[in-house]
Amino acid sequence: MSEVEIGRLAGVLRAALAAEQVIDDRARLRTYECDGLAQYRVVPALVVLPHTAQECALVVRACVAENVPFVARGSGTGLSGGALPHADGVLIVTSRLRAITELAPDDERAVVEPGVINLAVTRAAAPHGYYYAPDPSSQQICSIGGNVAENSGGAHCLKYGFTTNHVLGLQVVTPDGDLVRLGGWAPDSPGYDLVGAFVGSEGTLGIATEVTVRLVRAPESVRTLLAAFPGTDAAGAATSAIIAAGVVPAAVEMMDALAIEAAEAAVHCGYPDGAGAVLIVELDGPTAEVDAQFAEVERLCRDNAAFEIRIAADDAERALFWKGRKSAFAAVGRISPDYIVQDGVIPRTALPEVLRRIGELAAERGVRVANVFHAGDGNLHPLVLFDDAIEGQAERAEELSGAILDLCVAYGGSITGEHGVGMDKAKYLPRMYTDDDLDTMQLLRCAFDPRALANPGKIFPTPRLCGEVPGRHKGAHPLQEAGLAEVF
Amino acid sequence: MSEVEIGRLAGVLRAALAAEQVIDDRARLRTYECDGLAQYRVVPALVVLPHTAQECALVVRACVAENVPFVARGSGTGLSGGALPHADGVLIVTSRLRAITELAPDDERAVVEPGVINLAVTRAAAPHGYYYAPDPSSQQICSIGGNVAENSGGAHCLKYGFTTNHVLGLQVVTPDGDLVRLGGWAPDSPGYDLVGAFVGSEGTLGIATEVTVRLVRAPESVRTLLAAFPGTDAAGAATSAIIAAGVVPAAVEMMDALAIEAAEAAVHCGYPDGAGAVLIVELDGPTAEVDAQFAEVERLCRDNAAFEIRIAADDAERALFWKGRKSAFAAVGRISPDYIVQDGVIPRTALPEVLRRIGELAAERGVRVANVFHAGDGNLHPLVLFDDAIEGQAERAEELSGAILDLCVAYGGSITGEHGVGMDKAKYLPRMYTDDDLDTMQLLRCAFDPRALANPGKIFPTPRLCGEVPGRHKGAHPLQEAGLAEVF
Repeated sequence: MSEVEIGRLAGVLRAALAAEQVIDDRARLRTYECDGLAQYRVVPALVVLPHTAQECALVVRACVAENVPFVARGSGTGLSGGALPHADGVLIVTSRLRAITELAPDDERAVVEPGVINLAVTRAAAPHGYYYAPDPSSQQICSIGGNVAENSGGAHCLKYGFTTNHVLGLQVVTPDGDLVRLGGWAPDSPGYDLVGAFVGSEGTLGIATEVTVRLVRAPESVRTLLAAFPGTDAAGAATSAIIAAGVVPAAVEMMDALAIEAAEAAVHCGYPDGAGAVLIVELDGPTAEVDAQFAEVERLCRDNAAFEIRIAADDAERALFWKGRKSAFAAVGRISPDYIVQDGVIPRTALPEVLRRIGELAAERGVRVANVFHAGDGNLHPLVLFDDAIEGQAERAEELSGAILDLCVAYGGSITGEHGVGMDKAKYLPRMYTDDDLDTMQLLRCAFDPRALANPGKIFPTPRLCGEVPGRHKGAHPLQEAGLAEVF
Repeated sequence: MSEVEIGRLAGVLRAALAAEQVIDDRARLRTYECDGLAQYRVVPALVVLPHTAQECALVVRACVAENVPFVARGSGTGLSGGALPHADGVLIVTSRLRAITELAPDDERAVVEPGVINLAVTRAAAPHGYYYAPDPSSQQICSIGGNVAENSGGAHCLKYGFTTNHVLGLQVVTPDGDLVRLGGWAPDSPGYDLVGAFVGSEGTLGIATEVTVRLVRAPESVRTLLAAFPGTDAAGAATSAIIAAGVVPAAVEMMDALAIEAAEAAVHCGYPDGAGAVLIVELDGPTAEVDAQFAEVERLCRDNAAFEIRIAADDAERALFWKGRKSAFAAVGRISPDYIVQDGVIPRTALPEVLRRIGELAAERGVRVANVFHAGDGNLHPLVLFDDAIEGQAERAEELSGAILDLCVAYGGSITGEHGVGMDKAKYLPRMYTDDDLDTMQLLRCAFDPRALANPGKIFPTPRLCGEVPGRHKGAHPLQEAGLAEVF
């Protein structure tokens, strides 16, 4: 966009909204230059802060009118660059849409605006004995709108699933500025499940302006243990044994020696000395169930070489167990100047083997990897450590990071578990999908956003115009395509 | 299609497949004229029985080449006419694709072909301690492909969710005959969740040719009780009390007096005499949990006026409890020559009020209604009884049936809980969605199937050509549309 065009769009929006809702001051724009993945930085041309769904729709229509791309942003805590601004585009920040519109614990539902903070939903529901289940590590600051865009998970998705399992209805601004409703209040809305398709679409199909979520009954009992193992093999075997016993823990988290070292340095969580790996296992549910299963989990940890087991005596001790885990990403900054947070998924049964392979790949490249992950559902978060000041390290780390994703795919897993594709992983998508598979996804994007104005450049590896997506007629006579021409 | 055209397409398909896989004999075609909703009957022009995904794709490409509509059919047990044939179209029957391709209980996954019977998945997984959770009443004969098309539920969706919660990956034939993969093995695949959009799309986005499903660990313990109440108010209050206590039963099923009468007449299930309503409550899970909660459920039933409670002593008695419930639809044939099976959803908390209103509406019209439903999740199945031989009764029943759906919508519910929209409910869809909401769904259909050859006439109330779906440019200058022109 030229400066004249930016100025004109800013003027249009200031007149339609309030002047303070439109930011075009270069210094202020810079505060929005990245999301939680700071390795990509782009200053947007304009930032707009709508207050209502109608204002969101108006901003989108203004962008469409000027053929200007737009990117939605919640709290900006995403880890795949999904909310990375477009240099010639408008960044639509939804943080001022922050009302909890309806709270109906008896029906296990709440209706919230996208700027509502994840934990605020739980805080509102707690007095009624309910909570909102998806709990990304950033839950104190991340927004529901961002969670919807990225289909966020969390430590407890093993038992409770992802954001998509907890969103029933949406009001969205489509990429041409219409306000429409998808899904609703019922557990299964008729017609296409566009809620499912929208959740995790990372702003490329529009902007959520209202979200109907499921509330979950707070469990009667929560018990948490921390078990120390000689290494990740033993901890992985314990995890498999727990799941195989039919226990579905609320969470099974693993950290390896390097991750423990980092967490100790940062938050002094006091994990057992000499542990090659720790598991945090949390059970929740009715007291009778939790108590019975907890004893079994303890036994299975011991059977698999746990040399120390601590049981949280109260909420304070539970919080301390979790503190090390939840601060692990930031904590590696203590032991390495730079690092890449990777996110991949493997079948849980392949855990020990894949961890060994990651160790080998890291050793071959002379790069250190700290492993922190949701062991129960095979969602790995290898932290690839490097020093940008040392020639070639960043490249080796980046290469290793990609090799780890190849490993995940080779074992039948996925290139992202819960952080989304965003800007960061678009290039890896072809490792999982064929061109035909990706073109099928493009059909949906092009149907919603043929001009590619809604968060362009995210998710899909190859920017292509919608006219280029193979249509239904491919040129040849259809019977030749059908492989049937010869029978005539 | 003219007879010449049918003959030509039949010839093409016979040459490409085997002669016996293509049916054009009028008498044999007639066996396919309806699905489980026998009030609609259409004889297809041609029936084809492919053996493989590649053959399915070939048939679709042949249809596309001749511009002939096609409809996929599994076992034909659907209750919304979703598999109703097209008179000028090809019916593609997937029942011969019946291999369980992969069974990986350790990873809690199975890969099956669409013609595999629902219960066969559970039978295959059972020796390993696993089962396939979605259990429609027809599970002994319905197919996984049909379950995917209709997003089938079942008595246990209260705890375990719908088909969509258990399908992770699909291979599908797109409406232009390409074979593509959606989703995969991982719990959350990157990119758009087209699996979510495809499940429940009733054959309008293509045909599933391979389905990756989640296997669920068989519970350690299952306990079932049958409680008799004076009426549905008390039974509804007991249901609410159970859920409010934080218990998540595997199933809470209710039948009213008329439904009980029908079931007794048909299968002699021996439900308690004089019951105005019965509840079947089933708990499953770890024994410790089930035992503790079962005692609570029993107490809550008594507190809410249950006058008799029976506890299943063994699998045989449990089966007897369920026999009455599962045969209820067919059983009403004993007490009424004709009936409509309705399917709607309301918030569970509105249950007593909505049941009273249904009673009033029925009385006003002089029509009887038997109520059988999944009380736990508010999924009603009113059976509207009538005698087609009596002038005007069918119309009154049909009108009442629609009025019940209006009631569901008025209470914030849905026009279908688990039977799908199909042919039967397309006309009701505008009661839940605005034109803009429906056009948003059409965007997806038109992206996948611009020629409207894949199961045309289902789901959407108004057949419209894809060119008629409002595109992104609506004619007026975009700034006028944006409501911003005045600021220039």
